[in-house]
Amino acid sequence: MTKAEDTREKILERAVVLARHVGLEGVTLGTLASETGLSKSGLYAHFQSKENLQLEIIKLSAEQFTDEVFRPAIEQPRGLPRVQAIFWGWTEWVRKPGGCVFIAASSELDDRPGPLRDELVRQQRLLLDSLEKAAQLAVAEGHFRRGLDAAQFAFELNSILVGYSHLHRLIADPRAETRARKAFEALIARSLPAQS
Amino acid sequence: MTKAEDTREKILERAVVLARHVGLEGVTLGTLASETGLSKSGLYAHFQSKENLQLEIIKLSAEQFTDEVFRPAIEQPRGLPRVQAIFWGWTEWVRKPGGCVFIAASSELDDRPGPLRDELVRQQRLLLDSLEKAAQLAVAEGHFRRGLDAAQFAFELNSILVGYSHLHRLIADPRAETRARKAFEALIARSLPAQS
Repeated sequence: MTKAEDTREKILERAVVLARHVGLEGVTLGTLASETGLSKSGLYAHFQSKENLQLEIIKLSAEQFTDEVFRPAIEQPRGLPRVQAIFWGWTEWVRKPGGCVFIAASSELDDRPGPLRDELVRQQRLLLDSLEKAAQLAVAEGHFRRGLDAAQFAFELNSILVGYSHLHRLIADPRAETRARKAFEALIARSLPAQS
Repeated sequence: MTKAEDTREKILERAVVLARHVGLEGVTLGTLASETGLSKSGLYAHFQSKENLQLEIIKLSAEQFTDEVFRPAIEQPRGLPRVQAIFWGWTEWVRKPGGCVFIAASSELDDRPGPLRDELVRQQRLLLDSLEKAAQLAVAEGHFRRGLDAAQFAFELNSILVGYSHLHRLIADPRAETRARKAFEALIARSLPAQS
């Protein structure tokens, strides 16, 4: 990595933290200049445009989500243990200061066609596909029942996490984590093989 | 209603539609002036400040949610039929052009203490309380099992709708409504009295 690449990566890490707090739209070359103490022209040299900066924020956030949620989960045995590890890693992700940048960006971008929205949709599809595959592996391992609708499982797991983020970040309900855990346990219970 | 009040209400209705598309932060006296063709000074006379305008948008949106989701539901028999009517009315609310202003505002305001955030939190608590009461009535009617955790039911119902909004608005998944309906049916099935 060259010095310029190293500098660029450090700036981008600051931008990702800023985006968690102020949303993607709140991160411009101007606000990032204030945040880092660098000049706007220096930032321009690294990122060329606000839109490119925001695109890089989405990509780096997705890499961080993979590192912090999926990578530790893949170290768990496939099937139910891995699904549980994804859930717990994801609740930690939601609890990070500033919250989940993808949830905020979803509302910001849903009415704005363009490369940013396309990248966000791509990342969200990858997420749902990964959840679906994790559920399919749990079926293959015999942890979940045969015939389980794995895409439905992915939708419901995602819904629990978005609902949890909402209750935790906006309403600051102290029972938020318990609510999310109970909803997850109920989803798992419905996914187990029928008791003989 | 005086002519001034009538004018103010009509402007506010336009502001609510605008907020659904661009988010609460996107609605300023400036953008609303462009949208309505009125002068910024005229709008200032009606709303005094951007923050007051945004506060009025949250309040009117909450009234509309009550009118469009809860009022028709209250015409249904208490218990399960009313819970089902809330669900269906709410899915229609999410499908309105521009989507749900509360979901967008939640991400915009969660890190910004102040009167706007306070009002949004108040409205979201009222919503969760109303869902909890609807579930309690279903218990009282014998439609849901005794001992049901009605607050947990409210959390899970809210999560399904937020997850639905996400899948419908961002990813435009054609199966979004089916996913939400199946998740709702599973939630209902878990809430019924045990079969004798």
